[in-house]
Amino acid sequence: MKYLLTITTVLFLTSFAIAQKVDYDKKVEELGIKLITPTKPMANYVKAVRTGNLLFLSGHGPSRPDGTSITGKVGQDMTIEEGYDAARQTAISLLSTIKAELGSLNKVKRVVKVLGMVNCTPDFTDQPKVINGCSDLLVAVFGEKGKHARSAVGMNALPSNITVEIEIIVEVE
Amino acid sequence: MKYLLTITTVLFLTSFAIAQKVDYDKKVEELGIKLITPTKPMANYVKAVRTGNLLFLSGHGPSRPDGTSITGKVGQDMTIEEGYDAARQTAISLLSTIKAELGSLNKVKRVVKVLGMVNCTPDFTDQPKVINGCSDLLVAVFGEKGKHARSAVGMNALPSNITVEIEIIVEVE
Amino acid sequence: MKYLLTITTVLFLTSFAIAQKVDYDKKVEELGIKLITPTKPMANYVKAVRTGNLLFLSGHGPSRPDGTSITGKVGQDMTIEEGYDAARQTAISLLSTIKAELGSLNKVKRVVKVLGMVNCTPDFTDQPKVINGCSDLLVAVFGEKGKHARSAVGMNALPSNITVEIEIIVEVE
Repeated sequence: MKYLLTITTVLFLTSFAIAQKVDYDKKVEELGIKLITPTKPMANYVKAVRTGNLLFLSGHGPSRPDGTSITGKVGQDMTIEEGYDAARQTAISLLSTIKAELGSLNKVKRVVKVLGMVNCTPDFTDQPKVINGCSDLLVAVFGEKGKHARSAVGMNALPSNITVEIEIIVEVE
Repeated sequence: MKYLLTITTVLFLTSFAIAQKVDYDKKVEELGIKLITPTKPMANYVKAVRTGNLLFLSGHGPSRPDGTSITGKVGQDMTIEEGYDAARQTAISLLSTIKAELGSLNKVKRVVKVLGMVNCTPDFTDQPKVINGCSDLLVAVFGEKGKHARSAVGMNALPSNITVEIEIIVEVE
Repeated sequence: MKYLLTITTVLFLTSFAIAQKVDYDKKVEELGIKLITPTKPMANYVKAVRTGNLLFLSGHGPSRPDGTSITGKVGQDMTIEEGYDAARQTAISLLSTIKAELGSLNKVKRVVKVLGMVNCTPDFTDQPKVINGCSDLLVAVFGEKGKHARSAVGMNALPSNITVEIEIIVEVE
């Protein structure tokens, strides 16, 4: 009985330690990611709306660290690799909005859904390789909880000719 | 103490009065908006599905008051202003469906998410200015509760060549 | 009074019998539909994520029974009928994922939302007739509970040039 209690205690403390170990805010720093201060939307919408335990984020675009947007169509102006990087930058914009909304990334319980829209030519067919730039970063930060349902599709045009626009749904505490 | 109680009471009653003041059904009338009787879908789907406190609306298109659809691609057949008007008309279609589903717009707690899809040429990059026609109307009716997360993107083609198709998610009582 | 009780009992038992009758797993078999073993995503995402009572599915594409994908743009390489069939096959992929996730289709309470994206030419305007292939199958299996909110739209490009990509949200037990 005492033995069982000890095992239970050890297991509990271990799982607690594991759960504690993942500090997503620190993880972002460790990955060398610099979050940005989200810009305010210029129209009658907001960056994110919470309803119940779900946080719906607006479509975000890719910003360079200097604040300028990454623009151009994949398959014409941009390579897959450049598209991947644009999707990665977009993930940083999304993380920045989540942190601004929730105060801490540690309130994220699960990345539920990603809709990745790639500005591309009609004959471009590697949208998943582009949107991987977003998915890979989300999983680098959140681990298994960063794995999401996803659509990666091609658009004939996006606002200001940005290379990707990505919207996500996140389950929060 | 008595003073404090009076202030509290006044504040409470004021906030109550403010909360009471906003009758969305009346607001729509005041704005001169004429809701329409939603048409029945011609296939195996419905205009809206409620799950828990969320109402998911189908993609809606822009109808003129006479029931005909607004068609044409922005950047080719339509100006931004005409696109804006099409998005505004689409918002009216969406409001009409919400009212038909819920009985009253007063059951809307928050407009959560808008996906605004603009039928446009590959070089058109002002999708947000078009979808503002929908966002502006939602905020005109619901105020702060009308502010939503949003994506505004370009499509190469839409059903019957309608100018915009917009789907929304609404939190309801 | 006794008469009323009898009627009530009969009505209750009838409705119970009706409710019992619908075994969605059997229904799929009766319709001659062969579910497939979902392939694993090749990147950092998953086929479906459950949050609360909602199951969000990734964008799925159309697979033939032999596992190959149905590709080509509607309005150029594919007719509406071929597009309809591609959407039907995509619905089978979606059902297969739902069954793999939940163990049984009987855990589906409602198909909430369908986003049907058709790979098509800019002048193609019959996206709804294509996506009906998915909607019709969902309703054939789930009856009224299969009726969903829907958007059916045109895309200039999809991954690997698949003919349709469809993502859905399902309410589950």
